[in-house]
Amino acid sequence: MSNASVHTGRHFLQIPGPTNVPDRVLRAMDMPTIDHRGPEFAQLGLEVIEGSKKVFKTKNPVIIYPSSGTGAWEAAIVNTLSPGDKVLMVETGHFATLWRAMADKLKLDVEFVPGDWRHGASPEDIEARLSKDKAHSFKAVMVVHNETSTGVTSRIHEIRKAIDAAKHPALLMVDTISSLGSIDYEHDKWGVDVTVSCSQKGLMLPPGLGFNAVSDKALEASKKNASLRSYWDWHEIIAANKGGSWSYTPATNMLYGLKEAIAMLMEEGLDNVFARHKRYSAATRAAVETWGLENLCLDPREYSPILTAVVMPEGHDADQFRKVTLDNFDMSLGAGLSKIKGKVFRIGHLGHFNDLMLMGTLAGVEMALDLAKVPHRAGGVMSAMSVLTGRDAKASQAKTAVA
Amino acid sequence: MSNASVHTGRHFLQIPGPTNVPDRVLRAMDMPTIDHRGPEFAQLGLEVIEGSKKVFKTKNPVIIYPSSGTGAWEAAIVNTLSPGDKVLMVETGHFATLWRAMADKLKLDVEFVPGDWRHGASPEDIEARLSKDKAHSFKAVMVVHNETSTGVTSRIHEIRKAIDAAKHPALLMVDTISSLGSIDYEHDKWGVDVTVSCSQKGLMLPPGLGFNAVSDKALEASKKNASLRSYWDWHEIIAANKGGSWSYTPATNMLYGLKEAIAMLMEEGLDNVFARHKRYSAATRAAVETWGLENLCLDPREYSPILTAVVMPEGHDADQFRKVTLDNFDMSLGAGLSKIKGKVFRIGHLGHFNDLMLMGTLAGVEMALDLAKVPHRAGGVMSAMSVLTGRDAKASQAKTAVA
Amino acid sequence: MSNASVHTGRHFLQIPGPTNVPDRVLRAMDMPTIDHRGPEFAQLGLEVIEGSKKVFKTKNPVIIYPSSGTGAWEAAIVNTLSPGDKVLMVETGHFATLWRAMADKLKLDVEFVPGDWRHGASPEDIEARLSKDKAHSFKAVMVVHNETSTGVTSRIHEIRKAIDAAKHPALLMVDTISSLGSIDYEHDKWGVDVTVSCSQKGLMLPPGLGFNAVSDKALEASKKNASLRSYWDWHEIIAANKGGSWSYTPATNMLYGLKEAIAMLMEEGLDNVFARHKRYSAATRAAVETWGLENLCLDPREYSPILTAVVMPEGHDADQFRKVTLDNFDMSLGAGLSKIKGKVFRIGHLGHFNDLMLMGTLAGVEMALDLAKVPHRAGGVMSAMSVLTGRDAKASQAKTAVA
Amino acid sequence: MSNASVHTGRHFLQIPGPTNVPDRVLRAMDMPTIDHRGPEFAQLGLEVIEGSKKVFKTKNPVIIYPSSGTGAWEAAIVNTLSPGDKVLMVETGHFATLWRAMADKLKLDVEFVPGDWRHGASPEDIEARLSKDKAHSFKAVMVVHNETSTGVTSRIHEIRKAIDAAKHPALLMVDTISSLGSIDYEHDKWGVDVTVSCSQKGLMLPPGLGFNAVSDKALEASKKNASLRSYWDWHEIIAANKGGSWSYTPATNMLYGLKEAIAMLMEEGLDNVFARHKRYSAATRAAVETWGLENLCLDPREYSPILTAVVMPEGHDADQFRKVTLDNFDMSLGAGLSKIKGKVFRIGHLGHFNDLMLMGTLAGVEMALDLAKVPHRAGGVMSAMSVLTGRDAKASQAKTAVA
Repeated sequence: MSNASVHTGRHFLQIPGPTNVPDRVLRAMDMPTIDHRGPEFAQLGLEVIEGSKKVFKTKNPVIIYPSSGTGAWEAAIVNTLSPGDKVLMVETGHFATLWRAMADKLKLDVEFVPGDWRHGASPEDIEARLSKDKAHSFKAVMVVHNETSTGVTSRIHEIRKAIDAAKHPALLMVDTISSLGSIDYEHDKWGVDVTVSCSQKGLMLPPGLGFNAVSDKALEASKKNASLRSYWDWHEIIAANKGGSWSYTPATNMLYGLKEAIAMLMEEGLDNVFARHKRYSAATRAAVETWGLENLCLDPREYSPILTAVVMPEGHDADQFRKVTLDNFDMSLGAGLSKIKGKVFRIGHLGHFNDLMLMGTLAGVEMALDLAKVPHRAGGVMSAMSVLTGRDAKASQAKTAVA
Repeated sequence: MSNASVHTGRHFLQIPGPTNVPDRVLRAMDMPTIDHRGPEFAQLGLEVIEGSKKVFKTKNPVIIYPSSGTGAWEAAIVNTLSPGDKVLMVETGHFATLWRAMADKLKLDVEFVPGDWRHGASPEDIEARLSKDKAHSFKAVMVVHNETSTGVTSRIHEIRKAIDAAKHPALLMVDTISSLGSIDYEHDKWGVDVTVSCSQKGLMLPPGLGFNAVSDKALEASKKNASLRSYWDWHEIIAANKGGSWSYTPATNMLYGLKEAIAMLMEEGLDNVFARHKRYSAATRAAVETWGLENLCLDPREYSPILTAVVMPEGHDADQFRKVTLDNFDMSLGAGLSKIKGKVFRIGHLGHFNDLMLMGTLAGVEMALDLAKVPHRAGGVMSAMSVLTGRDAKASQAKTAVA
Repeated sequence: MSNASVHTGRHFLQIPGPTNVPDRVLRAMDMPTIDHRGPEFAQLGLEVIEGSKKVFKTKNPVIIYPSSGTGAWEAAIVNTLSPGDKVLMVETGHFATLWRAMADKLKLDVEFVPGDWRHGASPEDIEARLSKDKAHSFKAVMVVHNETSTGVTSRIHEIRKAIDAAKHPALLMVDTISSLGSIDYEHDKWGVDVTVSCSQKGLMLPPGLGFNAVSDKALEASKKNASLRSYWDWHEIIAANKGGSWSYTPATNMLYGLKEAIAMLMEEGLDNVFARHKRYSAATRAAVETWGLENLCLDPREYSPILTAVVMPEGHDADQFRKVTLDNFDMSLGAGLSKIKGKVFRIGHLGHFNDLMLMGTLAGVEMALDLAKVPHRAGGVMSAMSVLTGRDAKASQAKTAVA
Repeated sequence: MSNASVHTGRHFLQIPGPTNVPDRVLRAMDMPTIDHRGPEFAQLGLEVIEGSKKVFKTKNPVIIYPSSGTGAWEAAIVNTLSPGDKVLMVETGHFATLWRAMADKLKLDVEFVPGDWRHGASPEDIEARLSKDKAHSFKAVMVVHNETSTGVTSRIHEIRKAIDAAKHPALLMVDTISSLGSIDYEHDKWGVDVTVSCSQKGLMLPPGLGFNAVSDKALEASKKNASLRSYWDWHEIIAANKGGSWSYTPATNMLYGLKEAIAMLMEEGLDNVFARHKRYSAATRAAVETWGLENLCLDPREYSPILTAVVMPEGHDADQFRKVTLDNFDMSLGAGLSKIKGKVFRIGHLGHFNDLMLMGTLAGVEMALDLAKVPHRAGGVMSAMSVLTGRDAKASQAKTAVA
């Protein structure tokens, strides 16, 4: 381990977001702010709005807020739902729980399907609950696509089918905060009504932008919705967006970065981006398996391509382990949150990332397991390399399973 | 005029915000995003929170949102007021009108004191209205410190006295969006309950941060306030801020910039900053007077140090004139907004600015007046130079009057 | 004047180079250094070499050194001339004198045509001297295109004709350090053998690159030249350049900037660039004339488009005046050098520059003349504005004269 | 391997220089160029000159050129030596050979001690040769401290002792191009007369600056030396440096970066910097040994802390292997140069670097060995990790040996 208190080289930011912002994006943001009511801005505005639609895979409006992702959660709620409205939410983990807490604060009537934080939202269960709701009292089904706290990816496409099978009119609202731009997602094709996202994960930007992609049905619902709102109201922004401007001052320099980040995603091709993340996760899981540690996610169909949550062996504290990685290897790993605090650490492998950065990351974890005296088998990095070089047949199967 | 379609040199961004972001601030923002839950971030968080207090001149909490200034308006309202609450607002111009429109949307019961957009809020009038309100039905008085649409600065300190004279318990909520960090302002000493601001004016940052500085009285009110809110709720943020973090992902790179911008304001000294802006406005007014054009602001006690709104002569369109300045001199001036659209243009002279940038600005206006064939007397730039060199005694008086 | 010791806004860098580096160029340079032997670099190398040829207007090699312009002077000499070789140089000012001093150090036999530092090199005089040299003992004629110390531009095209008229085989070597990319110049068409230049003037880059554009005749001379040299030797670099690399490590990040700067010049169009600089100089001279001050350059055919050297009235020290502009207006003006030290100040008006930056500059000079109590007539800025708006017929003539 | 033609994440620049430039340094360079004759520059100039002395560990002048390291080689020669002067150079590898070629071009009379490119300069051999030179015909001994082409570090301190033992007055001139700021070096204490270096290796800057640190004896020699020179002449620069300026335009923005880079080295502490590089090289050698590949450097006392040159097994082309690493893992490795072209690849592990970047690097090499079907044993990365975690006793010995 390095004993120097001064860190050298690049920090390994391996939390599952904020992710590493590419130099191209940071440099694009590092330009003079312009008049947000002038013609140059209007062109930028139109470009980022159209570009965002490509990332969400929608032809409908995408509303971009100066906000965190939390703000985009709130926007989704206050535009479509009113206090007292009943909604179905699923306890996939910490962030689903936080979104539910927000729904409570905003006086929604939440039915919160309990979960073990090791599985995604069950399409079967959702179908069953909706089928029973003959009165169509549920106004919305709200799920997290990729639960950032657990490394479990829910199958949104199947949840859509479940709602359809139940012939239920509830809106489908999906949090893609840690999946957009990293995991396959189709707002229009999958029939999502409101997709919530933000800038600092797969979009490779600093935090500061929130997004709502909306369906016609959601827009229609919002027009009828009497819920008090101003900042988050979709309609004034959509109206202003037609000319490339916003109804209040947008976060200009963040939009410079968004334009560049979208260009990078399109240059690589979204399908390549998605495949790339699956490789990282397959390699990471191979390492975890070799170490003899447990993946928090239990269902191979739900393995997250963008992070892997690792269960600490009994008697070892994950936060203490994370301190070892930070102090010795200048690497930030994700913490276990709320009820899994200290029990889990999370390896982020998303965004502006590549094979060698992943290997640096996994080597850092393996060395830290050693230094922290966490029981494990050596050689996780060897297994990961086998996946990356394509020599590991089992990993290839794992890779397929992830697909 | 230059006929080249390609602009060279630096754009003159002379709208009254967003302002010119200093290179130091842009470069500070142009650094890798860090873990918002790690120790390095915590130190940054504490620094910017403490630094912000110095700028607002308060010992109380300052809440920093990833949002525009509009969001900070909403935060002020939803934390302290509930639908149906009666508030006193004053029509100082476009932005006061927008804030009022937000209050309407959020179902406050607004008494909107009409104004001519050429004067600030009248302390006498406020005192009179509050004195009549024996039942203390007004829960808040909400005024804009510097009305960015008109170049009129209301006398907040006197409004405080007016409220006190009326012995009225209403909260005083002040929008300092275009004044903070440019015009003398004291949250604590002046007894303001909620001060609203944002990043892209006197703070010399890009847009993307909103601020609420709050009094104990406002905090108390917020605890009793049942208004629905989540994103804007002060208390979770204040609680997290004690450790230098936020209750949701903050706009990290904007905070890098905020730290640097506050450092720059402190290096210069706030009193020097305020005096500097008064010089700019005195020089600008001297130019306007020589041109024979009219200042929208009618009361010398209310001349804005940070922008000057100029009334176009009858028969000339201000937006056409602004197009001439943009096309010929690559300078953006502020437009007349809503009911003064086309009738007024606004010269921003704030933020990261200096005498020669001001002279370039005023020369651009004078040359454009010429090219656009707007009737005027030549020599405005000469008058401005006289003020800047201290040779103009009248201007010195003007300067004093501004003080 | 501003009394604050802390400067705000952008510094006015009005020396005749280094000039203001555009943000686009600085940001392009602010990227990770790459392998100078890899394929990505090779593409960059080829691009900047081809792009440089467009700026010099040559189809022949342009050699780019990691060096100052002084290094490019030395390169021109050591590649083509040997100790004892006779050369004809012309005393146009400080830089011509420095180049001569270098020639002396390198043991050339210099005939230095004396000058008054107020005129360019005389084609007639050169023709007369060469005509007398029947033995063709002069191996080279070495002149400075734009003498940065005086604001006098020699007529290179006419000097070429003079050499031809004298039927003299001497090489023509020209310093375009402050003219390249700002003043019309054609390496091939004008028959120049070695053109010397650097990065920090019209090319809008920081200092750090030197250039030699070479004719076939110069290349031929260099092959026969036994002068000791290694770093500056053209041939190894030209050989390596064919594949886009260098024979030693090039200044990679400067080349990133060069690529961007050339792109900017091409977007604007060189003819527009040249015309733009003439406008600046016409406006500046109009101001100087109104002030009643004297232009150091006496011949209207030789007025420099990129700087104006102003003679201080007797009894006033130019460096003291420059201190006043720096202390009060955060503007750097060029000093009088060596024998005109204290007697002249120089206003640079070149590079990444525009009308309003020029007006800020001239207003700064006029205000400083006032503060420094230098006798002058007010109104120079008014005259400059008349030129810029096209209202000043005389200035239009001046402009024509400059052409 | 990744098949995407678009690379994501950060490139692994593992050539032995240019090295990864820290963001702090790039950002420091990304600031407006200032007047190189003004007071702000003078302060910068003095700071970087004083700071450079600390890095070279000298109290004598350090001359900084706008040049590559090759220029600094030339400066060392032309300041102290004249055509015909006899010098003793040692063939440690490609760069020693290039320096010798330069000496030839500059007409020195070089005795070039032959070498096998696998050993450093032999102090014993130098002593023997100098002892025989009773006439003191050798004017200088010129050696490369760290031969970048081979990964062999010569023992300069012992060479100094050898010269002293021979009681020979020859100047000692040392190339520290790839060692300065990474490998222990003491200009004064070790009695070096001219130390040559550059910016793009241990100093963590882009290429573009050359350095000469000089002893009193070297300065004395230069005064007596009649060799023709101008650009490289020490004395005018040293004279100008006293006031913080240069005798010609310095590379201002590179000096911004130099100031920041020196600050970073001092914050870490040079001894920590040196120890850090030894860890990297010990870990790298452990990997190479496990792979069953051969280190080009044969003498453990001469293992380079900053790069490791690896011999390719017979029948395998190192450049083809390097193409595999570049195409599959976006990593640049150093090539074998001239007579070892294709036979060796070089792993750079220096500069702004850390343990996890090293592990990414070594994992990339191991995976590429696999993909390129180069015979090797798996597990090099495991061995490297053992060294980094301190579990490998043998490596600890190796580490000691390196010291």
